[in-house]
Amino acid sequence: MQKGALLYEGKAKRLYATDQEDVLFVEYKNSATAFNGLKKAEIEGKGILNNKISTLIFERLKQQGIESHFIQRVSENEQLVKKVDIIPLEVVVRNIAAGSFAERLGIEEGTPLKRPIVEFYYKNDDLKDPLINNDHIEILGLATKEEVQTITDQALKVNEALRKIFDEIGIILVDFKLEFGRDKDGNILLADEISPDTCRLWDAETKTKLDKDVFRRDLGNLIDVYQIILSRLGGN
Amino acid sequence: MQKGALLYEGKAKRLYATDQEDVLFVEYKNSATAFNGLKKAEIEGKGILNNKISTLIFERLKQQGIESHFIQRVSENEQLVKKVDIIPLEVVVRNIAAGSFAERLGIEEGTPLKRPIVEFYYKNDDLKDPLINNDHIEILGLATKEEVQTITDQALKVNEALRKIFDEIGIILVDFKLEFGRDKDGNILLADEISPDTCRLWDAETKTKLDKDVFRRDLGNLIDVYQIILSRLGGN
Ligand SMILES: Nc1ncnc2c1ncn2[C@@H]1O[C@H](COP(=O)(O)OP(=O)(O)O)[C@@H](O)[C@H]1O
Ligand SMILES: Nc1ncnc2c1ncn2[C@@H]1O[C@H](COP(=O)(O)OP(=O)(O)O)[C@@H](O)[C@H]1O
Ligand SMILES: [Mg+2]
Ligand SMILES: [Mg+2]
Repeated sequence: MQKGALLYEGKAKRLYATDQEDVLFVEYKNSATAFNGLKKAEIEGKGILNNKISTLIFERLKQQGIESHFIQRVSENEQLVKKVDIIPLEVVVRNIAAGSFAERLGIEEGTPLKRPIVEFYYKNDDLKDPLINNDHIEILGLATKEEVQTITDQALKVNEALRKIFDEIGIILVDFKLEFGRDKDGNILLADEISPDTCRLWDAETKTKLDKDVFRRDLGNLIDVYQIILSRLGGN
Repeated sequence: MQKGALLYEGKAKRLYATDQEDVLFVEYKNSATAFNGLKKAEIEGKGILNNKISTLIFERLKQQGIESHFIQRVSENEQLVKKVDIIPLEVVVRNIAAGSFAERLGIEEGTPLKRPIVEFYYKNDDLKDPLINNDHIEILGLATKEEVQTITDQALKVNEALRKIFDEIGIILVDFKLEFGRDKDGNILLADEISPDTCRLWDAETKTKLDKDVFRRDLGNLIDVYQIILSRLGGN
């Protein structure tokens, strides 16, 4: 597959065209950002780790019957994906109170929720990704009611599958962010990445944070903890 | 009816017991507050105006078949209401983009929404009344799914009735905030107040703001505009 023109450079990845209309090259960058881009760093090795972790996770989801945009990993820091029309929603699933959710609602970080919950944030850097409700999604014309239902159902299914995957390797899935898009037939498809950049992952024994909170809160070496995730997932 | 002990002093009203278990005295204060209490002032005459306006509105709603906690006005700045167990939700209905909604979603103030929308904010001064979604309401145990549905339906009905009331007097109902409670039988009942403190009201001709935004944004004399609302509603 030929790597074509750079189509988009985001905070964590670059998208390139390929010689196939509906396939993209995704290159994982070494950039780490937090707090709507206020905190930034270049971290050697991060792109490779997230590319490998995201690959393993999309593959494991597929084995559990969950489709995604992922096609295959093609190098240390690149993968091929199906091109979709991204729906500008950050779909967050939470099992345990943490981060902005804990602060927003005055619930102590670490409190288990009685059931997994789904939140939608409007993916818009200028507006700082605000939390929105279903009426807002409709008013903004981001997705139809049916699409919102499909996305909610799929997000909760991904949660079940991910919990199984992480549970087996001694990791608690606290919360995570997904993005969905519409494929060329208009079907909703899981896209973007699933990595320690987009999940909160705590060691089941020690409760140590093994995700981007290490960077957000200056808790240690990001590469070390991302490497732990990759290794436990059976990668190297 | 005997005015008993002070039960609660809020930002805009004081609640007193009466000699009847399920009836409260509400005294409207002259305090104006905005931005989660950051901006404050005492404005002579405000309590009387809001007490009279709220009275007229609850009476007009009743004529249109919408029940509320309102029993009767008993003095210039006092009314009797049915005591309820307030559900800590600020229920906001919007017809036109304005204020925090316009800012949050990047929609220009004044843009009509294609249909009225409902938002829930967690009524909690310490947390600054954050916007929440239906899952948050459930997790926080604030109301059941059925109650949320009842509240949503009632809020939209109140919107239709209020739009009629204001339309007839040349005023555009932009948005407003309601509070609901549970009466002694556990039924959802419209409570609190409906006044220029809790509604955005624009003159239909000139688009002049006739509500608390005059105070929030230093646009003029609050008493003058609240008096316009009272007069147009047929009060004095
Ligand atoms: N399959 C896909 N097709 C098209 N765009 C995608 C796909 N998967 C992810 N994207 C988009 O790729 C962009 C680059 O990712 P990222 O660097 O994380 O960007 P951002 O800074 O916008 O989060 C994002 O806008 C993301 O939504
Ligand atoms: N019928 C009612 N029964 C009990 N409490 C009520 C009733 N109507 C309104 N309240 C409550 O009265 C309190 C006083 O009103 P207000 O001064 O506006 O307070 P706040 O500063 O909390 O908004 C509020 O907490 C409001 O929820
Ligand atoms: Mg991203
Ligand atoms: Mg109040």
